[in-house]
Amino acid sequence: MNIVVYPGTFDPITNGHYDLIERAAKMFDKVVIAVAASPGKRPTLDLHTRVALAREVVKPLPNVEVTGFACLLTELLEQQGARIILRGLRAVSDFEYELQLANMNRAQSPGVESVFLTPAVENSYISSTIVREIARLGGDISQHVHPMVVEALDRHYNT
Amino acid sequence: MNIVVYPGTFDPITNGHYDLIERAAKMFDKVVIAVAASPGKRPTLDLHTRVALAREVVKPLPNVEVTGFACLLTELLEQQGARIILRGLRAVSDFEYELQLANMNRAQSPGVESVFLTPAVENSYISSTIVREIARLGGDISQHVHPMVVEALDRHYNT
Amino acid sequence: MNIVVYPGTFDPITNGHYDLIERAAKMFDKVVIAVAASPGKRPTLDLHTRVALAREVVKPLPNVEVTGFACLLTELLEQQGARIILRGLRAVSDFEYELQLANMNRAQSPGVESVFLTPAVENSYISSTIVREIARLGGDISQHVHPMVVEALDRHYNT
Amino acid sequence: MNIVVYPGTFDPITNGHYDLIERAAKMFDKVVIAVAASPGKRPTLDLHTRVALAREVVKPLPNVEVTGFACLLTELLEQQGARIILRGLRAVSDFEYELQLANMNRAQSPGVESVFLTPAVENSYISSTIVREIARLGGDISQHVHPMVVEALDRHYNT
Amino acid sequence: MNIVVYPGTFDPITNGHYDLIERAAKMFDKVVIAVAASPGKRPTLDLHTRVALAREVVKPLPNVEVTGFACLLTELLEQQGARIILRGLRAVSDFEYELQLANMNRAQSPGVESVFLTPAVENSYISSTIVREIARLGGDISQHVHPMVVEALDRHYNT
Amino acid sequence: MNIVVYPGTFDPITNGHYDLIERAAKMFDKVVIAVAASPGKRPTLDLHTRVALAREVVKPLPNVEVTGFACLLTELLEQQGARIILRGLRAVSDFEYELQLANMNRAQSPGVESVFLTPAVENSYISSTIVREIARLGGDISQHVHPMVVEALDRHYNT
Repeated sequence: MNIVVYPGTFDPITNGHYDLIERAAKMFDKVVIAVAASPGKRPTLDLHTRVALAREVVKPLPNVEVTGFACLLTELLEQQGARIILRGLRAVSDFEYELQLANMNRAQSPGVESVFLTPAVENSYISSTIVREIARLGGDISQHVHPMVVEALDRHYNT
Repeated sequence: MNIVVYPGTFDPITNGHYDLIERAAKMFDKVVIAVAASPGKRPTLDLHTRVALAREVVKPLPNVEVTGFACLLTELLEQQGARIILRGLRAVSDFEYELQLANMNRAQSPGVESVFLTPAVENSYISSTIVREIARLGGDISQHVHPMVVEALDRHYNT
Repeated sequence: MNIVVYPGTFDPITNGHYDLIERAAKMFDKVVIAVAASPGKRPTLDLHTRVALAREVVKPLPNVEVTGFACLLTELLEQQGARIILRGLRAVSDFEYELQLANMNRAQSPGVESVFLTPAVENSYISSTIVREIARLGGDISQHVHPMVVEALDRHYNT
Repeated sequence: MNIVVYPGTFDPITNGHYDLIERAAKMFDKVVIAVAASPGKRPTLDLHTRVALAREVVKPLPNVEVTGFACLLTELLEQQGARIILRGLRAVSDFEYELQLANMNRAQSPGVESVFLTPAVENSYISSTIVREIARLGGDISQHVHPMVVEALDRHYNT
Repeated sequence: MNIVVYPGTFDPITNGHYDLIERAAKMFDKVVIAVAASPGKRPTLDLHTRVALAREVVKPLPNVEVTGFACLLTELLEQQGARIILRGLRAVSDFEYELQLANMNRAQSPGVESVFLTPAVENSYISSTIVREIARLGGDISQHVHPMVVEALDRHYNT
Repeated sequence: MNIVVYPGTFDPITNGHYDLIERAAKMFDKVVIAVAASPGKRPTLDLHTRVALAREVVKPLPNVEVTGFACLLTELLEQQGARIILRGLRAVSDFEYELQLANMNRAQSPGVESVFLTPAVENSYISSTIVREIARLGGDISQHVHPMVVEALDRHYNT
C-alpha cells in the first residue's frame, strides 16, 4: 500500500492545501496530513486547533487522515509505515527549500522519497501567511479557506 | 486621473525607493506613498517617524503624497480613489512575492491592477534592511539614503 | 499623453498577450503593439501575418494600435512619440531577461522607462511556443488564442 | 492501476533519468518512458536509437516500458490508459518550464496530473546536453551514462 | 599575500562550510573565518562557542584562522589587511542575497572584492538551520557536522 | 603560482568581460582568457577574430593571456598547468547553468575548482547577445564594448 505523508504547519489549512490533498488522494492509497508543532515558527493557531481544522476540512476525502507531530519527520514516516513525503510546489523559492529538505531527508533515511505536486493555478498564490494577514485586518478570506477556518481566524483576531 | 499607490514599510525610505517614486511621478498623475504600520515586521522606526521621513524626502515632487495606513491595502486604494498599485522589482525573490501579492489583491478586489517598475542599476542593491544594519554598526549610509534619514537612524542607534 | 509601446514577436498573439494589452489600455492613453521582425528567432508566421492577426485581435480596444518594426526599439519609441515600454511578467526567467533588456534600453536612451504588468493567473502559463507546438500536433488551442489565430495556425501546419 | 508516463527527448538517456525512473518504478504500478520525436529540438540521435537505448537501460526494471511518440502528450496518455505525467526537477529553470507545461496539460486534459521527483544529488547536474558535448570532444562520459550509451555516442561522433 | 575573509554566523559550522574553507585554503595564502556576532539573528549558540567550534574544526588546515567580530565587515577586512571576501553559493536564493551584499560592500569600500565558491554536491544541501532543527528533535547529525559540533548541540538542547 | 582560466565564447568580448578579467588579474598570478570554438553556438564572429579582439582588449593587463581552444575545458586546464576556472555571475539563470557546469567539471577532473566573480552593477546587464543585436540594427554600442569591437561588428554587419 502506498501511503504518503504531507507535512506542514497548516496555520491554517487553505484551499491551496486542499487542492493538493485531493489530487494526492486520487493517486495514492492513503494520505496522512502531518501537522507540525513547529514551535520555531511561533504559529498563530495552536497545534490542537490546526489539527482540528484540517480534520474538518478533509472530511469529504475517505482515504485522508490527520495527525499532529513534534518529532522528526522521518520518525513519523516510520510510525505511519510510509516512505513517501508529499510536498506542494508553487513558486521557485518554495522549490529550492523543498529540494534542500528532500535531500536532507534522503540523507537521514535513504529509503524515503519526496514527491511534488502543484496546485491549480487559481490556488497557486494562496499562502497561510497572507490569509492570516488579511484576516487580522478584517478582510474577506472566504474564497481562500474553508468556512470553519474563516470562523477560527475571526475568533482568534477578535477576542 | 491615474493615481498609483506605492505601499511598503519604508523602514526607512532609501534612494532606491526615491528612484522608483520619481519615475512613477512622471508617468502617473499622482503617486501616494502608503507607509504600512506592519506590526508583524516589528519595524525599527515607528510609523510616525517613517511617514515624516518619507514626506521630507519626496518634498521635491509636487504630485507625490505620503500617508500611513493600518488597514487592508484594497481599502486604502478605495479611500484614495485609486486602482493601481505600484511595486518595485529588484531581484527574483522580490518578484515571486510580488506576483503572489498582486494575484491576492486581484482576488480581493478585481478592478485593482499592479504595475512594476525597476530602479536604476546603481540603486538596485539598496535595501532598508542592509541600510539599518550598516547604520547600527556605525557605518556610512549617506550614499544610500537622504540626509534626514542618516540623522534619524543615527539618533535611533546612539541614544 | 502617455503612450506605451508593447514590443514582442507575437508568433502568434495569445490570450495572455490580450489580457495584458487590455489592462494597459485602461491605464495609459494609447498602447502601441510593436511586432518585431525578429529574423534571429526564425518566426513561424511571417511578419505580415503576425501584424494582421494582432490587429484583428485588438479591434475591440479603441486606444490600441499595431505596427511592425525592424529597427531598434528605442528608434520606434521616438517615431511613436513614446517613452514607456510595456512588458509582461509571467515567470522568474522572464523577469531576468526583461530586467537586462530594461537596463540596456535605459543605457541606450536614458529617458525611456519600462513598466511591467502581470496577466491573470489563468493566462499565466500560455506561451506562443507551446501554443504553436500544440497546433503543430493537431491539438486544440481554442481556449488560448483568438479564433483567427486558430485558423491561421491551422492553415500554416496543414498546407 | 497507477500508470505514470515519463516524457522527454532522452537524447540520450542518462544516469539522472535512470535514477528518477527507478524511484518512480517503486512508487507506481507501471512507468512508461515516452521518447518524444521532438523534431523542433533537432535531436543528435534519431528516435529509433533513443528508444532502443532507453529500452536497454531500463531492462532491469520489470514494470517499466519504453515507447516513442510523435503526437500530443495528452493523446499518448489516453492510449496508455494513464493520467499521471512524471517529470524530474533538478534546477529552478527546469521547475518554471515544468510548471508552465503542467498547467497547459491540465488545461488540455483536466483529469491529467503531473508529479515531480528529484534525482539523488550526485545525479542532479547531469544533462543530456552536457553529456553530448563531452562525448563530441572525446571526453569520458562513462560515469554519467550506461555503457551502451557511451558506445552509441562514440559511434555517432567518430564516424 | 592574498588573504580572504569568510564571514558568517556559523551557528554552527557544518561540513558544508568546511568543504568551502578547504577549497579556499588551497587557492589563497590565508583564510580568515570571521564569525559574526549577528545579534539580529538571535543565534542558538553564543559567539564564544561558535568561535571555539570553528577553531576546533579547522585545526587540520594550517593557513586558516578564526576570529569573532561585531563591527562592519569592511572594518574587519581592514584590520586583517584583506581585500577579498569569500562566500559560498548553494542555491539561487543564496545567490541573490550574496549579490546584493557584494554590491553593498563594493559601494562601502571600492577596493573590496567578493569571490564565490560552491561546495561539493553532497554538501550542497546542508544548512545550519536544518542541522539545528534535527539536533533539537534528537536526530542524527553526525554525517553533516564535526563530532565536537554534535556534542555542543547535544549539550545545548538537552540541558 | 595560481593560474585561472576564464573560458567563454566571447562573441564579442564586452566591457562586462573586461571588468571581470581586471578583478581576477589583481587576485590571481595569471589569467588565461580561453576563447571556445563553440561550433554548436554558431558564433557570429569567427574564432580568429574573437581571439584577436580579446587580445587587443586585454593588452593593458600584463598578467593576462588569450588562447583559442576546441578541446575539453579540463584538457585546456592541464595544458595551461591551471586548476582554477573563472566564471562570471550576473543573473540567476547564469548561476544555475554555471553550477551544473562546475559540478560536471569536478566530476571529470576532481582537482579542478571553479571560482565566481560578479561584475560592477553598471556592467551587470551587458551581454554579447544584446550587443550583437544592437550592432546589427545600427545602434550605438560604444559604451558597452572596446572601440576595436565596435569596428569589428560594424564591418561584420555592413559588408
